[in-house]
Amino acid sequence: MTSDPQASASLEVTTVLHALADPVRLDLVRQLSGSDTAIACGRFDTTVAKSTLSHHFKILRKAGIIATHRQGGQALNVLRTAEMEASFPGLLRAILPPSRP
Amino acid sequence: MTSDPQASASLEVTTVLHALADPVRLDLVRQLSGSDTAIACGRFDTTVAKSTLSHHFKILRKAGIIATHRQGGQALNVLRTAEMEASFPGLLRAILPPSRP
Repeated sequence: MTSDPQASASLEVTTVLHALADPVRLDLVRQLSGSDTAIACGRFDTTVAKSTLSHHFKILRKAGIIATHRQGGQALNVLRTAEMEASFPGLLRAILPPSRP
Repeated sequence: MTSDPQASASLEVTTVLHALADPVRLDLVRQLSGSDTAIACGRFDTTVAKSTLSHHFKILRKAGIIATHRQGGQALNVLRTAEMEASFPGLLRAILPPSRP
């Protein structure tokens, strides 16, 4: 398992805010924040078409909000919680609605 | 002095994030957050042209982040800190760099 080379080393505030300023991407981030494990690209709870979803993942990845790892032919996504918290403490907590049970 | 009718009653997360996802607007918000008093449109520390600035103020106002009041021929801007904090606790603190002294 290797880190995604597209992941940003440092998080840039306007890029991060732009990436989060979309209902689909915000929902993907919410699902990741409520998950203890990585989520494969095809396993998100969404009605968005696969190609559109890839576009959204790319924006989140480039902003440094998520990281994608390849494992056994799957693309597994995780939220970069520590990096986000280090750069913008409390941001995710401020904007994410509570996870559904 | 009356409230701006364009100010949103309730703040919508993606609209707010989009409004903040711009370096000029984020800087206007930073200046307002560091000010004890309202700031007239022409008194911000910026090199942006007046017409462009009006556009940015409009986006911030429509998102509900700032309110503009007219007083004595001036348009005075304030940050809607209480409303922002009620809707997204800690958001402004998370993304605004410390005010310059």
